[in-house]
Amino acid sequence: MPASAKTTNAVQRHRQRIEDLIAAMTIEEKAGQVNLLADPFRWMPKAVNPLDGTGSPARVTALIREGKVGALFNGIGAEAGRRIQRVAMEETRLKIPLLFAADVIHGLSTIFPVPLAEAAAFDTDLAYRTARAAAIETAASAVHQTYAPMVDVARDQRWGRNVEGAGEDVLLNNLLAAARVRGFQGEKGLDDRDAVLATAKHMAAYSAALGGVDYNTTDMSEQTLRGVFLPPFKASVDAGALSIMSAFNDLNGVPTSGNYKLLTEILRGEWGFEGFVLSDYTSEQELIAHGFAEDGRDAARIAFNAGVDVSMVSGLYLEHLPDLVRSGEVSMGRLDEAVRRVLTTKAALGLFDDPYRGTDPEREKAVVGARKHIELAREAGRKSVVLLKNQGNLLPLDKNQKIALIGPFADDVDNVWGPWTIWGDPERRVSLEAGFRAAMNNPQGLSLARGSDVETSLPGGIDEAVRVANTADVVVLAIGESQRMSGEAQSRTEIVVPSAQQALVDAIAATGKPFVILLRNGRGLALEGGIKNAPAIVVTWFLGEQMGHSVADVIFGDHSPTARLPVSFPHRSGQQPYSYDRKNTGRPANPDLAEQEFTARYRETPNTALYPFGFGLTYGDIVYGPIEMETNQLPWAGSISVSASVTNQGRREAEELVQLYIHDRVASLTQPGRLLKDFKRISLRPGQTEKVTFTLNPRQLGFIGADEAYRIEPGLFDVWIAPHAQGGVTSTFHLVGPTAVADGG
Amino acid sequence: MPASAKTTNAVQRHRQRIEDLIAAMTIEEKAGQVNLLADPFRWMPKAVNPLDGTGSPARVTALIREGKVGALFNGIGAEAGRRIQRVAMEETRLKIPLLFAADVIHGLSTIFPVPLAEAAAFDTDLAYRTARAAAIETAASAVHQTYAPMVDVARDQRWGRNVEGAGEDVLLNNLLAAARVRGFQGEKGLDDRDAVLATAKHMAAYSAALGGVDYNTTDMSEQTLRGVFLPPFKASVDAGALSIMSAFNDLNGVPTSGNYKLLTEILRGEWGFEGFVLSDYTSEQELIAHGFAEDGRDAARIAFNAGVDVSMVSGLYLEHLPDLVRSGEVSMGRLDEAVRRVLTTKAALGLFDDPYRGTDPEREKAVVGARKHIELAREAGRKSVVLLKNQGNLLPLDKNQKIALIGPFADDVDNVWGPWTIWGDPERRVSLEAGFRAAMNNPQGLSLARGSDVETSLPGGIDEAVRVANTADVVVLAIGESQRMSGEAQSRTEIVVPSAQQALVDAIAATGKPFVILLRNGRGLALEGGIKNAPAIVVTWFLGEQMGHSVADVIFGDHSPTARLPVSFPHRSGQQPYSYDRKNTGRPANPDLAEQEFTARYRETPNTALYPFGFGLTYGDIVYGPIEMETNQLPWAGSISVSASVTNQGRREAEELVQLYIHDRVASLTQPGRLLKDFKRISLRPGQTEKVTFTLNPRQLGFIGADEAYRIEPGLFDVWIAPHAQGGVTSTFHLVGPTAVADGG
Repeated sequence: MPASAKTTNAVQRHRQRIEDLIAAMTIEEKAGQVNLLADPFRWMPKAVNPLDGTGSPARVTALIREGKVGALFNGIGAEAGRRIQRVAMEETRLKIPLLFAADVIHGLSTIFPVPLAEAAAFDTDLAYRTARAAAIETAASAVHQTYAPMVDVARDQRWGRNVEGAGEDVLLNNLLAAARVRGFQGEKGLDDRDAVLATAKHMAAYSAALGGVDYNTTDMSEQTLRGVFLPPFKASVDAGALSIMSAFNDLNGVPTSGNYKLLTEILRGEWGFEGFVLSDYTSEQELIAHGFAEDGRDAARIAFNAGVDVSMVSGLYLEHLPDLVRSGEVSMGRLDEAVRRVLTTKAALGLFDDPYRGTDPEREKAVVGARKHIELAREAGRKSVVLLKNQGNLLPLDKNQKIALIGPFADDVDNVWGPWTIWGDPERRVSLEAGFRAAMNNPQGLSLARGSDVETSLPGGIDEAVRVANTADVVVLAIGESQRMSGEAQSRTEIVVPSAQQALVDAIAATGKPFVILLRNGRGLALEGGIKNAPAIVVTWFLGEQMGHSVADVIFGDHSPTARLPVSFPHRSGQQPYSYDRKNTGRPANPDLAEQEFTARYRETPNTALYPFGFGLTYGDIVYGPIEMETNQLPWAGSISVSASVTNQGRREAEELVQLYIHDRVASLTQPGRLLKDFKRISLRPGQTEKVTFTLNPRQLGFIGADEAYRIEPGLFDVWIAPHAQGGVTSTFHLVGPTAVADGG
Repeated sequence: MPASAKTTNAVQRHRQRIEDLIAAMTIEEKAGQVNLLADPFRWMPKAVNPLDGTGSPARVTALIREGKVGALFNGIGAEAGRRIQRVAMEETRLKIPLLFAADVIHGLSTIFPVPLAEAAAFDTDLAYRTARAAAIETAASAVHQTYAPMVDVARDQRWGRNVEGAGEDVLLNNLLAAARVRGFQGEKGLDDRDAVLATAKHMAAYSAALGGVDYNTTDMSEQTLRGVFLPPFKASVDAGALSIMSAFNDLNGVPTSGNYKLLTEILRGEWGFEGFVLSDYTSEQELIAHGFAEDGRDAARIAFNAGVDVSMVSGLYLEHLPDLVRSGEVSMGRLDEAVRRVLTTKAALGLFDDPYRGTDPEREKAVVGARKHIELAREAGRKSVVLLKNQGNLLPLDKNQKIALIGPFADDVDNVWGPWTIWGDPERRVSLEAGFRAAMNNPQGLSLARGSDVETSLPGGIDEAVRVANTADVVVLAIGESQRMSGEAQSRTEIVVPSAQQALVDAIAATGKPFVILLRNGRGLALEGGIKNAPAIVVTWFLGEQMGHSVADVIFGDHSPTARLPVSFPHRSGQQPYSYDRKNTGRPANPDLAEQEFTARYRETPNTALYPFGFGLTYGDIVYGPIEMETNQLPWAGSISVSASVTNQGRREAEELVQLYIHDRVASLTQPGRLLKDFKRISLRPGQTEKVTFTLNPRQLGFIGADEAYRIEPGLFDVWIAPHAQGGVTSTFHLVGPTAVADGG
């Protein structure tokens, strides 16, 4: 029985009870059911409950008793969960269980790589497994819902929340959104012991913030909204997500948390979503600051009528919905609908069968931070490391070498988790130093120097670093962003390594020692100077608690690098927004020419990426043979096979991520110069050749047309089989047939 | 008799002839009439005529004889004009005069400030007068049409063509578009001796190029298109412009040169435009590279049917329209319509009365580079200089002081015109050195050092500059961008003064000498280090041929600065795109607080401008009193007066540009945090106070609604009377009445 069917059964069993409850509820109790408050009992003591300005446990307990709270976040813990649920179950009139939610973004106790790093693995199974592990820990901690995955397609690396998503490509976002939803919710139905309700966020286009400023205004065509930003939400809904979070941003003049078209016409009408929509932290209240609502009452009316079923933190629904219903500005039918969605989801989660699910302290103790989760964190980490450059096969390092590990992250444990972790176990964080020592045959061969702080220089730091570097065979420079430099509200104007560290790198480069750059980062970066020119560059992101081991696995060759960039690394900061799938323009620049007049590029900077989307080296030496096709005619009802032979000419085994891109040469709306359509991972021994074959069908070749429907148009297509978005072997084929309108893509 | 009526009369007289001609023309002759070629006879010998790949005079002459050329550009000159026109009038079957066009952007021979600089004058009369003078010189040089004004609203300072426009504000763009159109076309009808057909370009949204890359893709909501980018085109049409140039950019998937909605539905259907639309240089051919047309024939069909009446340079219309009409893919009616528009415009220009208009060499000699035009260039220049900073009243300089004039622009004449000049007289260019020497009481007191090249350092340059600085009382640093750094295809990733010059400034700052920065620039810049911290900063743009005198007029106090920034100067390059009229977001950052979490700003940079739109100091000391209103109720059918007293507390006379901004607090679509609605210039003697009163009526308070109509909604408005977009005194008023849909705004 598929998970959705099992969920449906759980709901069906309680259908009548839900209707009976709705019939029995007062308007105030209904308003309470769609009121989500920050949990003052547990981790968030400072959370403000706007209803009394304090958010004290006593006040919230009183509200729960009155039936005025439907859900709480961000608290975890089996015992506390049982205690709070008991108030709802034993001290309220209608005994409706509370829904407990939490921001479990990349692990609860066991911290996995940040989502952007994990996207680099291009591995839906891995994303599924880490979400599954996170869900098991979460569900055992009396939490029923996580506010993840973030499925915002991110094309501006200034924006700090790229770190929470799957990068710039639509297909990769779709696949990882679905994998993560399935991972959180599991295969056995939402009422399974190990299932957690997934929440796709933030609907929609939140990542398109003007200038990369978090929360900023977004403005775009309907085609871009539907072609780029909405698909991962649709993929999440199709994967079974029963919760959607609305966003903070204004979209074309209508704030997303008051956007009827988005949250009702598209989400409900077109996609058939049956779960509930909740606001992001006070986003419905922020309609006032946006200039879209007069006051709190108006904000509640607009957001609720637009389709935001549940209010987060502001308390505005609780305060105003009763009167809005009495005045007729909100219909009782709409209120019942929202309450029904919440109660139905609670039923789906099994809370009407067992309101105390997840409150067994023994179970909690057994699964939270379980050994196999920790091992998975290490595996996910090493699979997320991207090798950008490796001159003279400097990597992997010899475990017997004398290594100088230099930089602010050399022995650091405060920046291994990355942003958005709350309940990780600090004791388990593995520094690079610890990871290196554990991997080296002679741990005494490792010497350390900090050299610089993250954003400021250290007195004497560079001198000390140079001294240490000169004692070693090879230098490893652990530099980049601190974990406070990406994440929410952490937009940056210049996406570079801070100048203090840049100076450290330049000084090390001047020693003449071979050196490896280990970049720590929550976004695509513009690399400059000594960093850009380093012999070897490795992107290590924030890999989670096992970071030191994960990096060591790659650096010392126990794991040959397999990951690829999910975001383009531009030449300069000033190239943002940027994505590989931009359109050709009428005057395409030729990247091979040093200078051209009157083409679409900057006068001082190429219009390409320094390291493009999809880029990543292995320890092998991979060569692509020409494209092979038996026919270049793709019939309307058929498919076409596109193949290329891929050879490892190197001396080490490698896993190559072979990518398939297309370009629709002429269409009724202009199309991207390249668009990823598929990818496959193959293992190649030294000298081995493997033929990789992709199959394309017409349904993969459409786009959102001027009429906002998905269109498939006949004509000529370019196709590439490629190691990344700026390379590969290419050919063409014709799609033969009529223009058609179809679902999906 | 208004100019439009006179033009109408000129057309009416030839109405029948036009119809007779159309009836008499072959399809090939019709295709020739909408074929615009680069003129190989005159300035553009290398221009390629795609029909034979050479563009030789002989080949073009042959085409003219065959009736296959309707217009030529970019050639000027009375005698040559007469010679070429004679071919059309004496050697063709139908004797239809040729239309001669040219890129007269900011002057023909007499070079005025670049348009962006002139926009800083906030002076529609000045813009009218410089356009008038340019038209007089142009019309006397056998040219009937200029490809100006550019009316693209520019909100990304990376984009190089900002220099050709009127900056970031919609109202200022509207006003200057209309003034420039009226200036080029004059008041006496297009057939007047001194009239030149104006061409509003580039329709539309060309300036919204993604990432600021010239020619790049644009993508936006209908509200932004209609609310920001289209109004200056509407203003141009309303001012009588009879020619519109389509653009290079893709807009929401439909390239603008193939965009029926833009060029026909809106321009013709909604605005009633009666002139002709021409493509930008091969932009119709570029539909192929965009992926919107299969080949040249398809491109011609799409562009022509979309509403591009005339093809520039590609020759595609000449080559393909006959067959497209024969096949029925283009209707004969559409072809006749385009030909009729061209012939009607020629009639309006008086070419059917006097095909040799503008070909009198005596007249040409008398007006081209006339003294009063040169004087106007100097006046326009000084009125465009913006004073950003003046610590301790360092400016104006004493004419008796010893001055060190340092920097790559100290004695330079190659960067006074700015981009987009062809026929200026190099002999008349006035360097800063020449201007300073002419103004100083003791010209020997001026010492010079180059110090640095524009983009690279000079060996020993800084040492020499420091030595010269140490001999002077005050240093003037003439630094910034060369004129090749802005303009078409001159997009920059980092909008800063090049680092070589930055080092020069830092070295001069270290001498301790008082110093003044004179910035040369074609865009808003991000100022850093010694430049940002200089005691005095003056924006001098590219002021045209009299630049040295214009700057000296201001620097030595003969003219107190009166100009204001038409573009925001951001804190950092990474803030682009940026404009003062951004929306508030749901989480507005408070610029007064050093750090805030979870508000809409960068972690390292404020979300404001360093020097905002509208900013500029005088040599006075201006203080604004509180807002005074007799009522805060604006009735639907009435108006409201908003006043403030403005006082000059300084010791020098000043002209203050008083600005009126509004903010619609709540609307059915969110509105800008501030929007300029009016401005007034007042003169204030030391100690003088003047009450400035603005009148607002409801028609000024509307916006483009969700239905794409202009809406006026009742409610609360903030109002500011302000010296710039980030300051001023404020109050509120209520617009009382019903919501209404209305024309214009």
